[in-house]
Amino acid sequence: MLLKVKTYGLLAGRPVAIIPFEVAKWLNVHVSERIRIQIYDKGKHRKEVIAIVDVERGIKNDEIILSEEIILNLGLKQGDIVEVLPAPMPSCIQNIIKKLEGKHLDYEGVFNIVEGIVKNELTEAEIAYFVSGMYTKGMTLDETFNLTKAMVKVGQKIKFNNKMVIDKHCIGGIAGNRTTPIVISIISAAIKKLGIDAVIPKTSSRAITSAAGTADVIETLTGVEFDTDRIKKIVKENNGCLVWGGSLGLSPADDKIIQVERLVSLDPKSQLLASIMSKKIAVSSTHVLIDIPYGNGAKVNKIEGKNLAEGFKKLAKKFNIKLRTVLTDGSQPIGNGIGPILEMKDVLSVLKQRKIRPIDLEEKSILLASKLIEMIMEEQKKEQKTLKSVKKSKKFLSQSPKEFAIKLIEDGSAFEQFRAIIISQGGRIDESKLEPGQFSFTIKSNSNGKIIHIDNKGINYVARMAGCPADKAAGLFLHKHKDDVVKKDDEIVTIYAETKEKLDYAITFFNKMNPVVIRRKS
Amino acid sequence: MLLKVKTYGLLAGRPVAIIPFEVAKWLNVHVSERIRIQIYDKGKHRKEVIAIVDVERGIKNDEIILSEEIILNLGLKQGDIVEVLPAPMPSCIQNIIKKLEGKHLDYEGVFNIVEGIVKNELTEAEIAYFVSGMYTKGMTLDETFNLTKAMVKVGQKIKFNNKMVIDKHCIGGIAGNRTTPIVISIISAAIKKLGIDAVIPKTSSRAITSAAGTADVIETLTGVEFDTDRIKKIVKENNGCLVWGGSLGLSPADDKIIQVERLVSLDPKSQLLASIMSKKIAVSSTHVLIDIPYGNGAKVNKIEGKNLAEGFKKLAKKFNIKLRTVLTDGSQPIGNGIGPILEMKDVLSVLKQRKIRPIDLEEKSILLASKLIEMIMEEQKKEQKTLKSVKKSKKFLSQSPKEFAIKLIEDGSAFEQFRAIIISQGGRIDESKLEPGQFSFTIKSNSNGKIIHIDNKGINYVARMAGCPADKAAGLFLHKHKDDVVKKDDEIVTIYAETKEKLDYAITFFNKMNPVVIRRKS
Repeated sequence: MLLKVKTYGLLAGRPVAIIPFEVAKWLNVHVSERIRIQIYDKGKHRKEVIAIVDVERGIKNDEIILSEEIILNLGLKQGDIVEVLPAPMPSCIQNIIKKLEGKHLDYEGVFNIVEGIVKNELTEAEIAYFVSGMYTKGMTLDETFNLTKAMVKVGQKIKFNNKMVIDKHCIGGIAGNRTTPIVISIISAAIKKLGIDAVIPKTSSRAITSAAGTADVIETLTGVEFDTDRIKKIVKENNGCLVWGGSLGLSPADDKIIQVERLVSLDPKSQLLASIMSKKIAVSSTHVLIDIPYGNGAKVNKIEGKNLAEGFKKLAKKFNIKLRTVLTDGSQPIGNGIGPILEMKDVLSVLKQRKIRPIDLEEKSILLASKLIEMIMEEQKKEQKTLKSVKKSKKFLSQSPKEFAIKLIEDGSAFEQFRAIIISQGGRIDESKLEPGQFSFTIKSNSNGKIIHIDNKGINYVARMAGCPADKAAGLFLHKHKDDVVKKDDEIVTIYAETKEKLDYAITFFNKMNPVVIRRKS
Repeated sequence: MLLKVKTYGLLAGRPVAIIPFEVAKWLNVHVSERIRIQIYDKGKHRKEVIAIVDVERGIKNDEIILSEEIILNLGLKQGDIVEVLPAPMPSCIQNIIKKLEGKHLDYEGVFNIVEGIVKNELTEAEIAYFVSGMYTKGMTLDETFNLTKAMVKVGQKIKFNNKMVIDKHCIGGIAGNRTTPIVISIISAAIKKLGIDAVIPKTSSRAITSAAGTADVIETLTGVEFDTDRIKKIVKENNGCLVWGGSLGLSPADDKIIQVERLVSLDPKSQLLASIMSKKIAVSSTHVLIDIPYGNGAKVNKIEGKNLAEGFKKLAKKFNIKLRTVLTDGSQPIGNGIGPILEMKDVLSVLKQRKIRPIDLEEKSILLASKLIEMIMEEQKKEQKTLKSVKKSKKFLSQSPKEFAIKLIEDGSAFEQFRAIIISQGGRIDESKLEPGQFSFTIKSNSNGKIIHIDNKGINYVARMAGCPADKAAGLFLHKHKDDVVKKDDEIVTIYAETKEKLDYAITFFNKMNPVVIRRKS
């Protein structure tokens, strides 16, 4: 069928073709299904694009509206003629059905699906079938290994040639919890002090459902979006970096799968493992620490957390990566600030060892850093036998990892490394710029009592309504934590926003969701 | 967030809102997710619509493009202000997850999902999760019963008050196979002859993936789209009808589910049962015959067919419907013609008992009709005890159901009923109008041999490429059937189309798919 191209500058994020109702009928396609669009010429090898269909009754029967993705790809202009044909079912559908039937997928089978996702050949519904298959039938270790490999294969890589390429990762779900900048600063300082051949090139995400991701928080002081060469330079200067991983294309299939999972809040274990591990492998990690917060309001309970930890260890072993896990208390937010600027203030007050600082955040950061230092120590012990000059190393190995981590914060060297990284990334630490939103409202306790629960999801949701993460100054400040005793009219939470409208939304949702539960004292 | 309405006359088939990239970021929604759109006024009860999101970078940050579905529902016009809010996850998502986890759904749980589908609250991906749950975890008889009930509940009903409301249904998948007009004519003639209180109000579908549905075929002679009152009148006049069920809204959730299943060719048994049974219940059927074709190229193999038959019987029992099943040979197309006009020609040559007529179609129609006559006989036997005048009935009961069916065709009474129904529906039998497409091409055998397989899917696909079902005159004529011995240059299949372009497509696809397999004789 030959149709005349119309273009409206529609940027749909994927190739979309809007076809007339009658054409859809002839092709026997419905909304969200696929068609093939070919440049019309007499040549044998016609360039073609597989497009997702939208159907409209409003357009003429010999016209087709194409999204910019197709226009650019095929080099078309208004009025050109294209040939529209039915698209065969993508070959990977067979593999998706196999998984739904509980059959084992080999590497080719998994790769086929992952490739179909990255090439935009699969619709959301089809990806949902794949996620359902993983969720209901599970994936063996081999399949998860293959999924991880395939995800790495279709993405970009960053090669570091250091002996140790260290990384930390949290499975997420906890509001605040901005340990990453502190941990990376401590480890970067440790590497410098020890003069070892190691780096900690941290690529972080932006918020997906939370109030802020580490990249959003770092962005309050400096840029976070760099190309691979620049990242390598930053890491070379500081043994580490704090950049956004999103634009690097490290595991593009994963981003798409996560979007489909979010619709129903599913998170199959195998996909979670492959998601995280693929990104670590893509940045050539050799030593990884995984933080698994568990408990009421966290992503997992203790048993699930332990299972997940086992899964990570087994998978890492197959990739020859040294990996530790640490189960942490995830039953409430960590730190006082929720939102990019408010979290950065917490991070700085810990790194600068201010008198008033969030001790929970500091303690958790030290715990994580000391686990990584432990891993460094083990490598050093192995090397001791072969190295001649081990003076520094000996002194280092004689102290406890935790003592060493605390010392690196207390003597200011962690903060120095943090500042060096921020400067390398083109920014500077100017605390006068870290002002929370000018519209604020403080929620007070309406009785004497005790705080028995602070819900992570609720807190994140209210912060998002206040404008997070796009509005850097928006967010929440927690005056109180779980188990704190409160009196009537005590300040519980202050909400900050950049506009009155968003503040009002946030207050409305706070009252509706009531994320801070106080047990009234009679 | 307040946005200014733009309208482009976009008819998306569901409420769609195209929002600016920055707004999507703030609301934390992605393509295919949901938002709430409210009329902006100071009143407390704001009218709202849940819309599916599309995101564009091309539009201004304070604008929103709404599809006509929303414009009409909220009574908006260009430039009006609406408030856009995040939409809560629909409550039925919890039930979808339950099913994916293998938990039992009660009536409320199932109803909740079905209602969500009908109200367009669920995206295709979410429906895919539900289908996956049914497919991987199965549904108990109780759940299937509840699914069927819920599907009926959300749809329209047609009430017939006759003692017997008879229906037949085929699970589909076989090309040609136009038994319905013949069976309905025979049974309608039988009811007339016996003077019993019964009707056979057949509502048929249009083609979904095949070359033609019964409604498409009947439409070559008469209208098929009527409202409920008119259908009742047609049925009263003729004890039966041959109308399209699609516009009656008998089981609207089912149509949507089928669309999502088609993406990956899944067809969970429970959904198939509920789909068919809900439509029978909606037209108040009391006696139903289900045709289950099985074999190579059919929807099911023999074992699956038997299981399905069991499922139908159990489900019907719970609804107090008398139901029989018949497993038929589905390993090749039935009849010679494929496509609306070509199939109608087959039907008429059987009903008119022409010398050259498709015997396979005739025999199958007689088989199905005799099964229904058997059911009528059983009811008559029960009534004999209570009835005083049973003369007609006695004579009727003394013959075999098959003999009776054959007699009704041979003496022309089936054809008379068929004509009466066509006239009642506003048409007439004018065979001069039944000319196949003017562009044709005949495929010939390129060797001596034997036909060992004719693939239903391939035949349907080629017919669709030739223009079926929209082009009534398009289609295929099978000169040969399975097991026929052929000589080189024997005519195998003639393809008909209304345009040269479509004929060429069909020939290309015929050669590619090769749906008629000939074993060469050496």
